Amino acid sequence: MKTTHVLLGLILCLANFAFAQAPAPPAAAPPAAPAAAPAAAPAMITDADIKALSGPDAKARANGDPDGSITGTINDITIADPVTDKTPKAKGLTVTDIANQVGQNKIAINFVWTLVTGFLVMFMQAGFAIVETGLCRVKNANHTMMMNFMVYGVGMLAFWLIGFGIQEGGVGGVANLGNSPVLSREFVVTLFGKPFGLWGQGGFFLTHGGAYDVFAMVLFLFQMVFMDTALTIVTGAAAERWKYVAFVVSSFIMGAFTYPLYANWAWGGGWLATLGSNFGLGHGYADFAGSGVVHAVGGITALAVSMIIGPRIGKYTREGKALAMPGHDLLVTLLGCFILAFGWFGFNPGSTLGASGNGNLRIGSIAVNTMLAGMAGSFGSMLYMWLRYGKPDASMTGNGLLAGLVAITAPSGFVNTVGAVILGTIAGVLVCVSVEFIERKMRVDDPVGAISVHGTCGLWGVISVGLFADGKSNYGGSWNGVDGSVKGLFYGDPGQLVAQLIGCATLLGFVFSFSFVVNWIINTVVGQRVGAETELAGLDMPEMGALCYPEFEVKTHSVGAA
Amino acid sequence: MKTTHVLLGLILCLANFAFAQAPAPPAAAPPAAPAAAPAAAPAMITDADIKALSGPDAKARANGDPDGSITGTINDITIADPVTDKTPKAKGLTVTDIANQVGQNKIAINFVWTLVTGFLVMFMQAGFAIVETGLCRVKNANHTMMMNFMVYGVGMLAFWLIGFGIQEGGVGGVANLGNSPVLSREFVVTLFGKPFGLWGQGGFFLTHGGAYDVFAMVLFLFQMVFMDTALTIVTGAAAERWKYVAFVVSSFIMGAFTYPLYANWAWGGGWLATLGSNFGLGHGYADFAGSGVVHAVGGITALAVSMIIGPRIGKYTREGKALAMPGHDLLVTLLGCFILAFGWFGFNPGSTLGASGNGNLRIGSIAVNTMLAGMAGSFGSMLYMWLRYGKPDASMTGNGLLAGLVAITAPSGFVNTVGAVILGTIAGVLVCVSVEFIERKMRVDDPVGAISVHGTCGLWGVISVGLFADGKSNYGGSWNGVDGSVKGLFYGDPGQLVAQLIGCATLLGFVFSFSFVVNWIINTVVGQRVGAETELAGLDMPEMGALCYPEFEVKTHSVGAA
Amino acid sequence: MKTTHVLLGLILCLANFAFAQAPAPPAAAPPAAPAAAPAAAPAMITDADIKALSGPDAKARANGDPDGSITGTINDITIADPVTDKTPKAKGLTVTDIANQVGQNKIAINFVWTLVTGFLVMFMQAGFAIVETGLCRVKNANHTMMMNFMVYGVGMLAFWLIGFGIQEGGVGGVANLGNSPVLSREFVVTLFGKPFGLWGQGGFFLTHGGAYDVFAMVLFLFQMVFMDTALTIVTGAAAERWKYVAFVVSSFIMGAFTYPLYANWAWGGGWLATLGSNFGLGHGYADFAGSGVVHAVGGITALAVSMIIGPRIGKYTREGKALAMPGHDLLVTLLGCFILAFGWFGFNPGSTLGASGNGNLRIGSIAVNTMLAGMAGSFGSMLYMWLRYGKPDASMTGNGLLAGLVAITAPSGFVNTVGAVILGTIAGVLVCVSVEFIERKMRVDDPVGAISVHGTCGLWGVISVGLFADGKSNYGGSWNGVDGSVKGLFYGDPGQLVAQLIGCATLLGFVFSFSFVVNWIINTVVGQRVGAETELAGLDMPEMGALCYPEFEVKTHSVGAA
Repeated sequence: MKTTHVLLGLILCLANFAFAQAPAPPAAAPPAAPAAAPAAAPAMITDADIKALSGPDAKARANGDPDGSITGTINDITIADPVTDKTPKAKGLTVTDIANQVGQNKIAINFVWTLVTGFLVMFMQAGFAIVETGLCRVKNANHTMMMNFMVYGVGMLAFWLIGFGIQEGGVGGVANLGNSPVLSREFVVTLFGKPFGLWGQGGFFLTHGGAYDVFAMVLFLFQMVFMDTALTIVTGAAAERWKYVAFVVSSFIMGAFTYPLYANWAWGGGWLATLGSNFGLGHGYADFAGSGVVHAVGGITALAVSMIIGPRIGKYTREGKALAMPGHDLLVTLLGCFILAFGWFGFNPGSTLGASGNGNLRIGSIAVNTMLAGMAGSFGSMLYMWLRYGKPDASMTGNGLLAGLVAITAPSGFVNTVGAVILGTIAGVLVCVSVEFIERKMRVDDPVGAISVHGTCGLWGVISVGLFADGKSNYGGSWNGVDGSVKGLFYGDPGQLVAQLIGCATLLGFVFSFSFVVNWIINTVVGQRVGAETELAGLDMPEMGALCYPEFEVKTHSVGAA
Repeated sequence: MKTTHVLLGLILCLANFAFAQAPAPPAAAPPAAPAAAPAAAPAMITDADIKALSGPDAKARANGDPDGSITGTINDITIADPVTDKTPKAKGLTVTDIANQVGQNKIAINFVWTLVTGFLVMFMQAGFAIVETGLCRVKNANHTMMMNFMVYGVGMLAFWLIGFGIQEGGVGGVANLGNSPVLSREFVVTLFGKPFGLWGQGGFFLTHGGAYDVFAMVLFLFQMVFMDTALTIVTGAAAERWKYVAFVVSSFIMGAFTYPLYANWAWGGGWLATLGSNFGLGHGYADFAGSGVVHAVGGITALAVSMIIGPRIGKYTREGKALAMPGHDLLVTLLGCFILAFGWFGFNPGSTLGASGNGNLRIGSIAVNTMLAGMAGSFGSMLYMWLRYGKPDASMTGNGLLAGLVAITAPSGFVNTVGAVILGTIAGVLVCVSVEFIERKMRVDDPVGAISVHGTCGLWGVISVGLFADGKSNYGGSWNGVDGSVKGLFYGDPGQLVAQLIGCATLLGFVFSFSFVVNWIINTVVGQRVGAETELAGLDMPEMGALCYPEFEVKTHSVGAA
Repeated sequence: MKTTHVLLGLILCLANFAFAQAPAPPAAAPPAAPAAAPAAAPAMITDADIKALSGPDAKARANGDPDGSITGTINDITIADPVTDKTPKAKGLTVTDIANQVGQNKIAINFVWTLVTGFLVMFMQAGFAIVETGLCRVKNANHTMMMNFMVYGVGMLAFWLIGFGIQEGGVGGVANLGNSPVLSREFVVTLFGKPFGLWGQGGFFLTHGGAYDVFAMVLFLFQMVFMDTALTIVTGAAAERWKYVAFVVSSFIMGAFTYPLYANWAWGGGWLATLGSNFGLGHGYADFAGSGVVHAVGGITALAVSMIIGPRIGKYTREGKALAMPGHDLLVTLLGCFILAFGWFGFNPGSTLGASGNGNLRIGSIAVNTMLAGMAGSFGSMLYMWLRYGKPDASMTGNGLLAGLVAITAPSGFVNTVGAVILGTIAGVLVCVSVEFIERKMRVDDPVGAISVHGTCGLWGVISVGLFADGKSNYGGSWNGVDGSVKGLFYGDPGQLVAQLIGCATLLGFVFSFSFVVNWIINTVVGQRVGAETELAGLDMPEMGALCYPEFEVKTHSVGAA
């Protein structure tokens, strides 16, 4: 009988301690077991154990913690009441508290990352403002600054009222930002038996329904500053002759409809994103941070507006030869390029919408690709101009940096550093060729080169994803609902290139047409262009009522004519 | 007998496995149990288990981790020695290590957030410098820049020596930053049977006693840059005529006493914060990021100094009509406004002092409110000026953006986006009306509009908390020691509005009087204003010994007289 | 028999529940035990328990979460598949998932911190550009801006191709950034029986082998922007006469070899870092953020280049008296100083390479030391100039701020605030004395004071670690492989001062000689200096093909001659 008991005891002991991957206690002599067992066995963890854990005590901390060794410990885990889930009470730490704090930390990191990078993108408005103004003439400096200043507000108003809802109203949960279901209303039609998302229908005003939500706020901020970047591109191409009121109306419509529609298709769950899952074209249209969504939309709209508005008086001779009209301040132009390069560290790496979880640690790679492509672009342009015209031209070198940055925007999350340098160099040369082509062949006047920098190099960036994406990235295991990593033609996936080309066709087809019609209507109704007298005198006094630099002496030739 | 054994076995098994909320193992046939039980039963976790957990091995990692899938794992949890609590030793991971890392991560996130946003606030000094200098005349540009440059240092010195200790010496623990007890010495008097905190008494020099502490450092940095923002407001209103040495003395006193006193009352545990817990007035004076503490204190001190110092020569005709004195560089003025809007993303969202825990995820909401109110303010001013004077004035549009930002500063953490847009629009109009009133009715000369932007709209911001706070925020369950969320009059709490009005009365009563007396004494002792000859020639050569732009030709009328 | 059973039951119960540090269940009456035991005993935690834990449900979240109370919870912990370790599947949460998320959060925080601070450092390029250009004359403004603009790209290219591999190829694991082994190839020689690391041999191009790695990318970004800071120092000292093509070649070599070699010795595991572990000299050469590595290398190379290139025409009279050549724009000079002070919050605090773990919470202390020393430097210079020349000179006050910031760079992580203020004040005076000495005694022309700001005060910063380090910091328990905290002479460790002086000797001996020879060869091969005619006319048209400000009238004396 005893043997049976001992056996049973052993069995039961083993049933417990085997899980602990530790030797069982010596249970052969039952009377001795009570004392021996607790000592030898590993401690199993319970909520009570965790409650008993503690960090440094208050007395030690009162002397200060110069090296940070007793700050940031178990003491700092938030203890939430399980009933109200809000008011902390001194009830001791539980596993749920730890796990909640872990999740809270993850979302907090991702909020911080998305917000800080969003702030950097917002600061790009300052960069665009002074790049464009520096490249314009002194007589239009106040007007160019004010367009760049108010485009921030005009776009924001349009996006808050209308655009955000169209773009992101159906985006669904974003795991990095907490997976909230509050933006889940995409308008979808069925074509060829497949769902085509067309626009979102929620989140307007950020107050009603579920859109008064911490996640929706973070997403709004980040998407708003991207949208405003696209809008400010147009002010450069149409500078020195755009009627201020027409600028306000045109920018409002672009922020409310043009940009959000394309952005929905690419990023908001729309039909371009699902080209992969619907038709097997790679991972669908892949535009990591918006070479297409932001820059090409901006550049192509700039082309439409510039065509409607016509060239500046004096830009072309009677024989049709384009004359140079140098900007008035290269210092602020290059300073602005630096601000943009700084802000681009928000633009591209921030587009992960997070740093913790899901392959987000690639943010460093994205940042490095971004700076390398910008560098390569500045070299491409500088050397092209140096070889072709004999001098390393400052304004084109600045534009070359921007061209490289625009081009890497779409592929930044998918390529390696060699790819980034190659495609950036190409962008740097391309922007010079494009400026010459648009100015001389197309006879479209673009004072700052915005169409070439953002339009041409934006399209090049979209295409380059389909060429250089190396299949080594991985954001949570899939992209656009297709498992695995985005690969371009050079790494074996021609379908991806097709998806990218469909994106380009949509930009050139839909976005250009839509923008052209909208701005043609504005031209008819309120008039896009200032009068010739105003233009010759400079727009600052007639349009804005003040000179930019009222006390400095300006060379007379520049005030009257070009 | 056998039945008894089986029953006993079952009982013991249940006693264990019931907690695991899992089906008990099939213990009916004891001999079979040893094999079956470990497999079927859930693994109970022990410290030994956790030590056995492991992440990716070094061999796999040596090939690089392009997609970030094997970086940032259990391997990265700091293993601390339980005895020294400092030197890591290879002893294997414990639950305490995990919990400590969780707490460390939380505090690290919050330190990063508070520091990065603090850096953004510091950068606002650059924005103020060029906004103010751009709005001044070319002959005073060096002087205005230098005041704005050195106000950073003068304020910092005063705050390090005296101000921080007065403001934060009695703030107590801040849970978001690790709850350190090193700043817990508030001087409190008892009035009407209630404690009234008046000033702090610790933390001077950041070295002695417990103030050499990682928490105190982070708090100092964030509070210092706020204080310096208030100081730099005054340099704008007193520009073009303030004696440099008087500026240094006046700013030192403001950074050492004026600002810290009011900041202690509002944020450091002082009597304004406890109006709710002491007298049931809502949640006490609620000023999320300092419309009152920073901007109204700055604007009201600016008013006092401007009144003492008098208007610039030529500002008023003999008949008392105010003449316009346009600034010399609108480009840098608007660039500065962008820098300020960028820095404000530090100012308001950073005022949570954290991102993880305690409802801090509202940082996105605060950032969105901030930008929307700024936008609304720029529209309010632009449209007011356009309708009233026929042109969208650039400098007032810039001031309108700032007015909206100033107004949202106090309510940013308590209102929704619709409230933000409404109160920002009002601020944009209010700043124009206030500029006209102060210039024409009060005959106080304020070259940059600082009194209106920061004083008037700062007071409006404080009041607007008492109107628009919607009761949907929640920072750790209470505010100023009163449970629940701050609600304004429009959401049912008139007591909150009373608390806000007491704050405004204190600003207009105490801060104005104190600043007036201090600056009146400085005026008597060292003289606040430069001589008329210096003023007419411009302050740059006589006061600073150098012109700002020695090589540019300047229109003669502007050098000699206004 | 019954008694035996009961005893056995008790023993087994105790064997389990004793570990839980809780009272055993009442097992006296076996039949009653099943019900009573689960209730009274503390819950032991199992993977199954953790799987059962849950956060707020989707229904509640669909209404929005305005206060952030139900976002960021246990729901947000990434659940990874244990086999693929990549694709998340709905298998429920485990302890390993929690621990992995904790490690991921830590690394994510540290990546965010290192990247964001790296971005701030990159932005310093903009600050240097306008400080230097503002201090140059209007006729060379485009040329000075373009050198500062392209030094960013030239340095980046050199560093990507060569420099990073030399500097960091043998750095080994960095615990804060995930401890990856991909950069572990230091070339080491043995001298005096000790290992002397000379240069790294891995990480070139960031693509081959293990260097395509998320950790290597973050490290590259941060180190690249530091290197570029050193390079841009030289463009200031050689401004207004440096041939553009020579600038490109010289900067490339500095970014590829000069800087990376010294940086390897100090930070990359090289021989200066191991002076402590090898020879007992304190903690080895300790240069927290690079007063020596970045600033002295830059300043000393600037000295070599300035000596080779010679003074500007007109700088010295025939009698050898130095003439002042004031800069053309003090507004942008002081604006640039603010940008630099802003970026320095990245430079110094970011040099922890992390915020979570290992004493990193000292980042706040480092930031405060940085700003206090900058403040003290600006006071030191302002008061020195005021007392000596009668006016508070703007450009020297700006340089004083920079001098304080340069000096605190090495000691920022090791000193307290009083030390920071003292050494910053000394730097502010030192920079003025050094400018006078270099200009008047050495007759080396340095248009912007770069040699004094970065060279002299850089050396002072290195030395000051050996004086003021207070032994209260602690980064993971050791520094440079020596246990404990860095202490200077004033706190009892003269060996540390010796290590610092060996660093200074290396800077003055090796770096100066190497830079001198390299630039002497460049001078011989391509010529470092523009022709006299070009210099007199200004470099903008001859070298760059465009004026910086083509429309502004410039005083005639300044265009032709100095």
